[in-house]
Amino acid sequence: MNDLLTFRDKFNREINFYLDGKVKEFGQLDKEGVGLVKAIKELINYGGKKFRPALFYFAFRSYSSERLNDVFKMSFVFELFHTFALLHDDIIDKSDKRRGQPTIHKKYGQETAILAGDLALMFCDELFTIRKENQKLVNLYNQFKQETLLGEYLDTIKSGSTEKIMELKTTRYSFSKPIIIGLTLAEVANETVLKWEKLANDVGILFQIKDDYIGTFGDEKITGKPTSDFFEGKKSVLVDYFLERAGESEKNKFKNIFGKQSGENNFQWYRNKLIEKNVEKDVKELIQTEVEKQINLLMQNEVFANKSLTNLLIEILNVIKKF
Amino acid sequence: MNDLLTFRDKFNREINFYLDGKVKEFGQLDKEGVGLVKAIKELINYGGKKFRPALFYFAFRSYSSERLNDVFKMSFVFELFHTFALLHDDIIDKSDKRRGQPTIHKKYGQETAILAGDLALMFCDELFTIRKENQKLVNLYNQFKQETLLGEYLDTIKSGSTEKIMELKTTRYSFSKPIIIGLTLAEVANETVLKWEKLANDVGILFQIKDDYIGTFGDEKITGKPTSDFFEGKKSVLVDYFLERAGESEKNKFKNIFGKQSGENNFQWYRNKLIEKNVEKDVKELIQTEVEKQINLLMQNEVFANKSLTNLLIEILNVIKKF
Repeated sequence: MNDLLTFRDKFNREINFYLDGKVKEFGQLDKEGVGLVKAIKELINYGGKKFRPALFYFAFRSYSSERLNDVFKMSFVFELFHTFALLHDDIIDKSDKRRGQPTIHKKYGQETAILAGDLALMFCDELFTIRKENQKLVNLYNQFKQETLLGEYLDTIKSGSTEKIMELKTTRYSFSKPIIIGLTLAEVANETVLKWEKLANDVGILFQIKDDYIGTFGDEKITGKPTSDFFEGKKSVLVDYFLERAGESEKNKFKNIFGKQSGENNFQWYRNKLIEKNVEKDVKELIQTEVEKQINLLMQNEVFANKSLTNLLIEILNVIKKF
Repeated sequence: MNDLLTFRDKFNREINFYLDGKVKEFGQLDKEGVGLVKAIKELINYGGKKFRPALFYFAFRSYSSERLNDVFKMSFVFELFHTFALLHDDIIDKSDKRRGQPTIHKKYGQETAILAGDLALMFCDELFTIRKENQKLVNLYNQFKQETLLGEYLDTIKSGSTEKIMELKTTRYSFSKPIIIGLTLAEVANETVLKWEKLANDVGILFQIKDDYIGTFGDEKITGKPTSDFFEGKKSVLVDYFLERAGESEKNKFKNIFGKQSGENNFQWYRNKLIEKNVEKDVKELIQTEVEKQINLLMQNEVFANKSLTNLLIEILNVIKKF
């Protein structure tokens, strides 16, 4: 049984239907006005696992079956917010590729990418319509948006610890917040929400560490993600481990080449050092051990038993585990 | 009596108080995290007339006195949305100056300006809290945001007629929508709203024509606005009039120099042509005649009589009239 795949097929169909409606709406205002919606649609159709909307929807469905169609449509929020974040982050990070394809700003210019990102964010707020009288839910949603942005900002100005950026920029936004918002919408009791939150954060951190691993050791052709973290100077567990294990002269060399367009040779030197010092091996083992721990927790703890969200998380954990 | 000035003083005090609260909130997440809120605050304190939030607030107050403090706070939405639009537009238009000061992207980098714009937009949605169960109101708000963005996009890709861009990008966003949203919040009858809408659109067009005039003939030191419309290739009534009155060779020359960094000499040539062909004079007269017409309408029509919004609009019209 593959819950994510089933969800994704339906999700892709329905979000395309929604965006086609938006194309029509904008086309009625001006025939050239459809460019922004089309850019959003194109990026969404580049692919992606759509696990953020799935986490929200499965979290809700694990506890409620009310208005499922509306809640499904509300799950678009999490994909559109992700699209907004990608559009602006790719400009900021000067990324040329996304999901193996040229980034929107490379293809249509920076202006279009900025405005398409803005529009995707506006679509989120237009779609976040259910139970808006629930102040707790609305607060969570505002936190979700603003904390993600703060994480991106700290990343941009190279401030804050690796853990904090990781938590703000990825863990909360990609894992815990979609889940907590789904649970809150289903009016799940607070102590249960907290248990899911703890678990979601741990899974999110593992996802991020795997992402950092791919950003350094992945094969771009296979993963579709660029291995440019080194040149961007992205903080990660790999970097932290390396700095703990490096000698003075290695640290000095690293400082001079990290976060700059310092050439493939230097990147290769860094990768070799990570292998030589067992950073690569230890990070891989860390991921695999921790994934097993989380899967066991999901299967044994009675809070999580027999929930569709549990199956989805196990599926995602199995993807994280695969090298 | 100067309603706008009184409003502006209170508004500036209270929005600074609100933003200081946001600085504190972000500072608690990370001490370096305050940079984005500070950028927003800085741009707002550069100045500006704050007539957008005033139009919303006076529209509401003309028909209701319920929850005035909450409605006042909700007026921040229109200034923060304007701030969002300025932050991103200035990047897109490559503007160096705003309100006589360096633009945020010039001062703190493009990354900060993109993210600060995103955050300002998120603040809007966080502040738009009253009567969210009123679907008509929410639809108006979503339209307000998305139409403005469409206008900016059409401007960017140099598509659409001057009138359409003007209407989407400025008239609706700066005049009619803040007023209509204020009236709808006060539950004013539809036919009355339509009368205000027509008037607001006409005032908005005059405001835009005046803005275009300043963008070509203004003294940057006095107006605080750059006279760079020519180099940006901005569509305007001035351009339309010029093209109607120019000969073939003038049109050809214009095509080669408009919308390019074609040098001060060419800009001077264009300005001289506008004077020579009476475009400058006719546009000025058009503005003054039309302003008088609108003031008379406001004073004589019983829909508008004895409303605080009427006084505010007359004040704004008098500013537009002044050369």
